[in-house]
Amino acid sequence: MTTSPNPSPDLIRQATITRQSAKKLARTSNQERQQSLLAMAAALEQSMEGIIKGNEIDLKQAENQTLQSSLIARLKLDREKMINAIEGIRQVAALPDPLNHRQLHIELDEDLILERLSTPLGVVGVIFEARPDAVMQIASLAIRSGNGAILKGGREATISNQVILKVLHQGLTYSCTDVSTLHLLTTREESLALLNLESLVDLIIPRGSNQLVRFIKSNTKIPVLGHADGICHLYIDQEANIDQAITIALDSKTQHPSACNAIETLLIHEKIGHVLLPKLIPVFESYNVELRGDPTSCTLGIIKQANENDWSTEYSDLILSVKIVPNINEALAHINKYGSRHTDAIVTDNLTTANLFLDSVDSAGVYLNCSTRFADGFRYGFGAEVGISTQTLPPRGPVGLEGLVTYRYVLRGKGHISSDYISGVRQFTHRSLAV
Amino acid sequence: MTTSPNPSPDLIRQATITRQSAKKLARTSNQERQQSLLAMAAALEQSMEGIIKGNEIDLKQAENQTLQSSLIARLKLDREKMINAIEGIRQVAALPDPLNHRQLHIELDEDLILERLSTPLGVVGVIFEARPDAVMQIASLAIRSGNGAILKGGREATISNQVILKVLHQGLTYSCTDVSTLHLLTTREESLALLNLESLVDLIIPRGSNQLVRFIKSNTKIPVLGHADGICHLYIDQEANIDQAITIALDSKTQHPSACNAIETLLIHEKIGHVLLPKLIPVFESYNVELRGDPTSCTLGIIKQANENDWSTEYSDLILSVKIVPNINEALAHINKYGSRHTDAIVTDNLTTANLFLDSVDSAGVYLNCSTRFADGFRYGFGAEVGISTQTLPPRGPVGLEGLVTYRYVLRGKGHISSDYISGVRQFTHRSLAV
Repeated sequence: MTTSPNPSPDLIRQATITRQSAKKLARTSNQERQQSLLAMAAALEQSMEGIIKGNEIDLKQAENQTLQSSLIARLKLDREKMINAIEGIRQVAALPDPLNHRQLHIELDEDLILERLSTPLGVVGVIFEARPDAVMQIASLAIRSGNGAILKGGREATISNQVILKVLHQGLTYSCTDVSTLHLLTTREESLALLNLESLVDLIIPRGSNQLVRFIKSNTKIPVLGHADGICHLYIDQEANIDQAITIALDSKTQHPSACNAIETLLIHEKIGHVLLPKLIPVFESYNVELRGDPTSCTLGIIKQANENDWSTEYSDLILSVKIVPNINEALAHINKYGSRHTDAIVTDNLTTANLFLDSVDSAGVYLNCSTRFADGFRYGFGAEVGISTQTLPPRGPVGLEGLVTYRYVLRGKGHISSDYISGVRQFTHRSLAV
Repeated sequence: MTTSPNPSPDLIRQATITRQSAKKLARTSNQERQQSLLAMAAALEQSMEGIIKGNEIDLKQAENQTLQSSLIARLKLDREKMINAIEGIRQVAALPDPLNHRQLHIELDEDLILERLSTPLGVVGVIFEARPDAVMQIASLAIRSGNGAILKGGREATISNQVILKVLHQGLTYSCTDVSTLHLLTTREESLALLNLESLVDLIIPRGSNQLVRFIKSNTKIPVLGHADGICHLYIDQEANIDQAITIALDSKTQHPSACNAIETLLIHEKIGHVLLPKLIPVFESYNVELRGDPTSCTLGIIKQANENDWSTEYSDLILSVKIVPNINEALAHINKYGSRHTDAIVTDNLTTANLFLDSVDSAGVYLNCSTRFADGFRYGFGAEVGISTQTLPPRGPVGLEGLVTYRYVLRGKGHISSDYISGVRQFTHRSLAV
């Protein structure tokens, strides 16, 4: 089934301990979990210098190995990043408790009361590259939501991650959360074996490149929260406000080109192309964006031709493919064919066209007259982002703490048995009660 | 990755048509989808005799092949079953619309409004054994929730399923739903290939034996709604009402022994075993239940000894394993080790013990002083049951129409771009609006 190795007895033992600690954590109060996060934040503050020194060892190693400068930038933990990460933990502590929400409350019959309550998932497995700040963020999200976490960072951040986890453990000793709730894996074999720990790990969260996510999705039966691709589109309708369209296109492409919610393809209605493109091309040139056009848009000023591969490429860079379409249906068909169901937007002043687009595009986010860059848990007001999911089933789109909880049905009776309802001695009332 | 064959061009073409029809259906009104169901019900009523005749051909074939009598009973479609199935479709039509619920409504900033709306999944793949009534039920659930369905029934019901689908298609011609929204596969190769149609099928629903579900789960990357095992426990605490405990145990085991929510194991606190068992044993004997006990319960009157396999066996029959435990923690440990996270119950009059159990058991359903047989979508008041899920992530437990929908984020702006919020020119308001 998978290429992953079988988990070693030691990994199984450790994951079992993490699971038991998580079960204990699941029964703690909101205040206790909040206090655990504050204790971690305080420990990080106290040991900030030590963490930065540990990180410097990783950085030196990375420089010696002449790793990519973008990777080194992500790896680096300076005072500012540490202060932000610690502030982030305090913000997660301040979020509303995701546990023990009563989502349903139904009287099935007199004295037979059904509740649906939010509960933690159990244990999450988190596999990430570079960024050692991810350890702090994930640890706080997991504990806030009553979950254990088994973490595996990139090799280049080994020392940083180990020092951070040691400090987080130190902090947790001043809380009611067992230190074994957070466990760090150190070898690649362990992280591969983690993907086979179906009975002990409930969710895998990959943080890293599309290649990493794709590899993980192909090698585990455990549910994966994440997305391999972010091919987002912006469609500029014939009834668009031209200045607004250019501003939105520019923001969607250039504000953070390597983000998954940046656009890769611009679709333009043929009736507006000859007015829009002569204005848009110089603006995008001034932002160093390389435009790659279909034959029609190349007749309107785009120099470089797009090929078939362009429509399904996530550039993650200052490159944008452009296509002229004869009508909205062709735009919808293009998005349906090449999109990754992440986030797609339309610019139009026509309400009917807008609604047709918003109803027809089968993506996690469908936007009207705004930038695709809003597809983000913080911008949506969730206070945290566990990941962005492009799967069809919930959770979908940007996922906050909600992605780390599930629910349980609790039914309380007074000797109720099913045969009474089958024989007709008793009848269900199915009365909704206040949640 | 899987043993399933690649989908044929014909299957891909057909699934694409079903997906397109489903997209069209997704945009229809509640009334239109209700009318589609009523049109199917009317067509079935009109063609009832023809369906029963078709079913008789399958039945004769099954008798010639001397198939199991329980299978023949499930295969048989008589007038009564048809009337019930048609009534079922009308009930599904009358359920509240699962689509276009506004689950979230947030003002991100002035004129930048985020909604989360429930939407159909797209296309569901349904693989079922015997029961041709499943075609009618699944068809109605799928269309009610705006989804297409690709169905594959057991070989023994080939004619029945084909006749039913033909009649459903006839009905749909009197509605706005395309007939191609419902597609029936006829060969085993096609149903195996269906499991590889990741880009066209959003959810697989298996209806049948544990073996079928296990096979499907191991051979697809498409999410599967279902459960392979239902090993449910009842724990009788030392402070249980003895008569209530026996009544609940009896109902949980015997009311429908082959159901997944029937109990397989009874755990009894050692302090109550010597009083409970001498009363329980004759009652269970009178219901022809074979008890298999651990060594201690065998000293208290149970004749047959249980072996290690018994604790992890779903008998689906009138057999019950019994174990005496020294305390609730041992009961919890047993359930944790052998359970399938389906439904587990406790009988006790002690509230602290009850809450410890309800908080600690990590199953989709945790029950106090009532039968495990209540774990059912109809009994929960959902009006329909798509399946029962034992996975950790939602949807979990009995799943109604909710299991056939997902959601989409719709964001409407007036030229809003992300860089304004990064530069600080604008601030998010994140104001909750009425849902």
